[in-house]
Amino acid sequence: MNTKLYKHSRLHDFTYNILKAIGHSNSDAKLGADVLISADLRGVDSHGVARLRGYINLWEAKRMNSHPHISIEHETPSTATIDGDQGLGLVVAPQAMNIAIEKARNVGTGWVAINNSNHFGIAGYHAMMALEHDMIGFALTNATPTTAPTFGNKKMLGTNPIAMAVPTAQQPPFVADFASTTTAVGKLEILQRKNEDAPLGWIQDKQGNPTQDASSLKNGGTLLPLGSDRIHSSHKGYCLGSIVDILTAVLSGANYGPWVPPFLAFLNPAENPVGKGIGHFVGAMRIDAFRPADEFKSHMDNWIETFRACPPINANEPVQIPGDQERILTEERLQNGIPLLTPVVEDLQNIAKQFNVSL
Amino acid sequence: MNTKLYKHSRLHDFTYNILKAIGHSNSDAKLGADVLISADLRGVDSHGVARLRGYINLWEAKRMNSHPHISIEHETPSTATIDGDQGLGLVVAPQAMNIAIEKARNVGTGWVAINNSNHFGIAGYHAMMALEHDMIGFALTNATPTTAPTFGNKKMLGTNPIAMAVPTAQQPPFVADFASTTTAVGKLEILQRKNEDAPLGWIQDKQGNPTQDASSLKNGGTLLPLGSDRIHSSHKGYCLGSIVDILTAVLSGANYGPWVPPFLAFLNPAENPVGKGIGHFVGAMRIDAFRPADEFKSHMDNWIETFRACPPINANEPVQIPGDQERILTEERLQNGIPLLTPVVEDLQNIAKQFNVSL
Repeated sequence: MNTKLYKHSRLHDFTYNILKAIGHSNSDAKLGADVLISADLRGVDSHGVARLRGYINLWEAKRMNSHPHISIEHETPSTATIDGDQGLGLVVAPQAMNIAIEKARNVGTGWVAINNSNHFGIAGYHAMMALEHDMIGFALTNATPTTAPTFGNKKMLGTNPIAMAVPTAQQPPFVADFASTTTAVGKLEILQRKNEDAPLGWIQDKQGNPTQDASSLKNGGTLLPLGSDRIHSSHKGYCLGSIVDILTAVLSGANYGPWVPPFLAFLNPAENPVGKGIGHFVGAMRIDAFRPADEFKSHMDNWIETFRACPPINANEPVQIPGDQERILTEERLQNGIPLLTPVVEDLQNIAKQFNVSL
Repeated sequence: MNTKLYKHSRLHDFTYNILKAIGHSNSDAKLGADVLISADLRGVDSHGVARLRGYINLWEAKRMNSHPHISIEHETPSTATIDGDQGLGLVVAPQAMNIAIEKARNVGTGWVAINNSNHFGIAGYHAMMALEHDMIGFALTNATPTTAPTFGNKKMLGTNPIAMAVPTAQQPPFVADFASTTTAVGKLEILQRKNEDAPLGWIQDKQGNPTQDASSLKNGGTLLPLGSDRIHSSHKGYCLGSIVDILTAVLSGANYGPWVPPFLAFLNPAENPVGKGIGHFVGAMRIDAFRPADEFKSHMDNWIETFRACPPINANEPVQIPGDQERILTEERLQNGIPLLTPVVEDLQNIAKQFNVSL
């Protein structure tokens, strides 16, 4: 498929201007653009500017508030629950993370559950905010129902990702950021565009049968939890997705399970919500709340060097460290630009026209 | 295979007496027996009395200290790092969990990293200690290296399990307790005894090739991370196992990765350890540090009822809630007894003879 390269600063400016055009303050627009462009830089193209249209649609449907007043509903020295006032998760989650970091500074760790939010972009961004403070960062979110529990045949959970970022000394940081499902919606969309089959174990069809038809998710099928089937321990992926749902939503007072409001604005949220908006959960742990930071970081370096030196099965496929791939892509894209697919470019051009903002 | 039923109280008495015979105090022996028999009751047979011989072997090899003085090395209001003094994890982890619970009572959450420990039995036991305090409990541990990272061909991680226990109102608690690998060593041992093949995706052979030979793990092969192969996102299982290794060991000062001392006493620990013993990480979060406990628990009931009512693919295979199976087995085994395989019974009889304790 054709792509065109765009300088990241240009896409950042554009995103900033669009977020302002729909009502965000300067600082919120900058924050939202930072999070979104970081996804494009890290190669998580499905969570970058390609999503801008989706956010605008939510705003037009009055399901997203572009000038949220985030409030703390409840707190203890190490915890808080915050109401995101229907804001963009892109804007709400970093503020929650700042609260977590502040609490960690005071009492060792900080944990913030967030309700009444919207899609927060890549989980890794929020977790990585902890790094410069010599803290381990965590970020989880629930998401549009797409996934069936083991043995089930209904969309009950989202891809419910987990991110953890860990500081290091000389090595680049360890950044795990992964869904609790075997695959992601974006990967199926790519296969559909190419008219290719999906591997068995990614999805099941409307009847709950294994299928390779990449379009079956939008035709009543479901994603499968990490593990794919019971023999390969999909119940563990189901546990993982459930843990994320409970921490982000049952604990925060957001919607959980099948009640999570869908990202697509033309799909209506459930009529009988069990909570407010979608939910996130972020955390920060000060390393020196456990052991001296220098000691820890030099052991993290050793951990990373050891795993990178693990003998590979094939010499041309070395063992990677979580975060390696995204870091290499970031370096490359900072230099050469971010490749956008033709349909994404067309979409951005339409947005530019709609809001009279130049791309 | 032949089994014989034993009343749980009888196995508890026996375990208590053996742990005392090798030097444990009354209270530590009771605690160790509680944890071990809870595994048998919950159906995690590989982690119950069948392991007693392994613990004795570690004690005989002077790798396990039966009268540990557990000490706090470092703490903040919400965290602690403790040295398990080479004690049994069965005894060390519950004490760490009590510290976590106390800290959560004071500041909302409590997190304890543990070094210099040994195998701690089932993770679920420790996580479930939080339930009666209206807290969410967490327990993680690293373990004997058995598992290759994605693309790798060396034993670098253990099965590194994660447990989370969540309080409820009327419903039984949510208890997830699962390894970050596709399968467990115990499952391969059962297949070997029956002379049966393993499913593809559980293990790889010495060369890193996919194999169904259940004996390949002991012949130089490795377990695979949850997800099994790259196409089915084994890198996510590798992330999960790594997260557990970092929190339990790099953060606590225990051995990590390939340095984790093996459970089998006839295998020597690495000569150049990077830390002390094996590592655990436990945590407790007070529910009412986030929202009123009654509110949360009634939503957890609703979560559970909703997932249990998820339309199943096959009517005879309903969707389960994490912890269901173990709870049903516990009720059954409390009533009818715990089935022990003949080789396990013979093993216990030998132990009984060795320590002059009646079975």
